[in-house]
Amino acid sequence: MTPHDAIRLFTKTLENLEKWMDKAAEHAKARSFEVDVLAGARLAPDQFTFAQQVQSACDQAKYAAAYLGGKPAPSHPDTETTFGELGERIRKCTAFLASVGEADFSGAAERKVSPPWLQGRWLRGHDYLVHVAVPNFFFHATMAYAILRHNGVALGKMDYIGSLPVQEG
Amino acid sequence: MTPHDAIRLFTKTLENLEKWMDKAAEHAKARSFEVDVLAGARLAPDQFTFAQQVQSACDQAKYAAAYLGGKPAPSHPDTETTFGELGERIRKCTAFLASVGEADFSGAAERKVSPPWLQGRWLRGHDYLVHVAVPNFFFHATMAYAILRHNGVALGKMDYIGSLPVQEG
Repeated sequence: MTPHDAIRLFTKTLENLEKWMDKAAEHAKARSFEVDVLAGARLAPDQFTFAQQVQSACDQAKYAAAYLGGKPAPSHPDTETTFGELGERIRKCTAFLASVGEADFSGAAERKVSPPWLQGRWLRGHDYLVHVAVPNFFFHATMAYAILRHNGVALGKMDYIGSLPVQEG
Repeated sequence: MTPHDAIRLFTKTLENLEKWMDKAAEHAKARSFEVDVLAGARLAPDQFTFAQQVQSACDQAKYAAAYLGGKPAPSHPDTETTFGELGERIRKCTAFLASVGEADFSGAAERKVSPPWLQGRWLRGHDYLVHVAVPNFFFHATMAYAILRHNGVALGKMDYIGSLPVQEG
């Protein structure tokens, strides 16, 4: 899985996440509650809310594309509180991901990646992808899914996985 | 991320999962309940239990190593009901993962992967890794984490991520 494959996988999963949010909106409508209540839902009192899980999934994807593609990361302040705003956040993120092309990832494995939380230390680009970006991205995407599932939204594994390039014959 | 990198990442994450289970056992002891109660915990009534999430994470890793490494997958029946048994299941899985070496993955990208649930259709090995193994493995590992977190176990993001090959200077 090249960095470009990973970014395309993140894009697909964020697009899937928007569909989970559509199912949540249908569920809320059927149960006569305001879907934006779920933006503040969480699985434990000291854990991120659904909105924060979506923001974090977007940021993991955005920073992976920026650090490994050698591009500045656009600023996306964490101001979203509604499903409408979270949908826009996802689309801003996927638009940026689409702007980083396969050629931008040339040499990504050996790039020095030094996010602020490493306080001056760094990871090889390859190690950042394997040990940080991939597990963290799927952590936040799955937590977003788990919060909706815990709140009764009818999601199944194929909603999580989305389309598969299946071959016949 | 080569198939071998992915399998090593799965191994690390399964080893982290055993540590989350140790923290769950400490939590249960401090709260005077039987930790094995958590083996049956779930986030929604029609979702997998903690035990099933652990079994599924193991199986995603096992089948990825088997399919991509061209080795038969050992049979690990889903009989575990206690934390002790789930720990053994994880160790049986990681022992198998360790038995599939980097050379076994030669040509993995182009292998035809045809798991039973594809009913005769297939995925290229590369596509199986990207679209099935990686997202599904982290789905089940994160769900296991989420169930413990929801039940009050004091886990944080670094328990999830585990060790990082950070560079200095």
